[in-house]
Amino acid sequence: MLQQLLNTYQIILGSKSPRRQQFLKDLNIPFEIRTSDCDEVYPHHLTSEKITEFLAEQKSNTIKISNNELLITADTIVWANNKALEKPSNKEEACKMLETLSGTCHEVITSVCIATHKKSIVFTDKTKVYFEELDSEEINFYINHYKPFDKAGSYGIQEWIGWIGVSRIEGSYANVVGIPTSKLYKELKNFL
Amino acid sequence: MLQQLLNTYQIILGSKSPRRQQFLKDLNIPFEIRTSDCDEVYPHHLTSEKITEFLAEQKSNTIKISNNELLITADTIVWANNKALEKPSNKEEACKMLETLSGTCHEVITSVCIATHKKSIVFTDKTKVYFEELDSEEINFYINHYKPFDKAGSYGIQEWIGWIGVSRIEGSYANVVGIPTSKLYKELKNFL
Repeated sequence: MLQQLLNTYQIILGSKSPRRQQFLKDLNIPFEIRTSDCDEVYPHHLTSEKITEFLAEQKSNTIKISNNELLITADTIVWANNKALEKPSNKEEACKMLETLSGTCHEVITSVCIATHKKSIVFTDKTKVYFEELDSEEINFYINHYKPFDKAGSYGIQEWIGWIGVSRIEGSYANVVGIPTSKLYKELKNFL
Repeated sequence: MLQQLLNTYQIILGSKSPRRQQFLKDLNIPFEIRTSDCDEVYPHHLTSEKITEFLAEQKSNTIKISNNELLITADTIVWANNKALEKPSNKEEACKMLETLSGTCHEVITSVCIATHKKSIVFTDKTKVYFEELDSEEINFYINHYKPFDKAGSYGIQEWIGWIGVSRIEGSYANVVGIPTSKLYKELKNFL
């Protein structure tokens, strides 16, 4: 288990996401939140996990830690038709994204960076998500009631649209919610 | 969406499971709980989904409903090495089950019965669940802290052991928690 690591380091979570914070609680990892306001901008030529690796590391590099601290940062994208779907900036964009995802399969990619003053690693997990056909009534109901403007790809798998619309996934469920917990646990166990 | 069905029938959930109750809330389905104390016993020759279909129908048959009510019952088993893992009756049994599941893949099978006075249907969903190797410290910690004695196969995928131990699933996540929500929604939409 993680006792030796937790005796050695104070864990710092570099994320404002309430879902990531809940996961660390569910993993019984005591932590402190420390975030920076770095822009989530990446070089144009990057694709797929190169994007999330770049952003997870960039977030890590902009947060200061001390010798006895271990920093966890992460980035998640929805990767559909060879494009990254970001957070939607308005209702129309959210609607368009959900129409794109309806009746088809996409990938959710999360990269995690674990860093101390001594060492830093990045790892990635990918999950395939299969959506049923969504009609416009369902899409509008979801956007109006759940306002998914803080979510890449305009949906939360753990919300109404995920329960009615996602018939199948292949990979880690936690990864789709925002952090691949079993990989994170394994990497933390082997980190020292 | 489900408005026409909900205008026609009052939904009755025939299950004590807090996880199934939460799912109906997440699906925005108003419901009443009505359960019976039928023994979960099935003929010896049944295997796999024949077991859950039998038990979902048996639960349905033991709960009385009136003309304007629609009853939902369900049964879930963990199917590993051609055997159904039930709820463990003590710590030793729970420990043995988790040792069986460790480092390998099993199926979670849920059958759901939807019934009114006019019509009844049963459907099934199966999800493959891949567990990482669990050591005895992890198994003991989980059983002592989470007491999974109400859970088939001795684990809850939405608890600590699921987050650290389940690296991959193939199929519906909700199905593993206790009800295949997207199939249920679809069947309810087409029920009238």
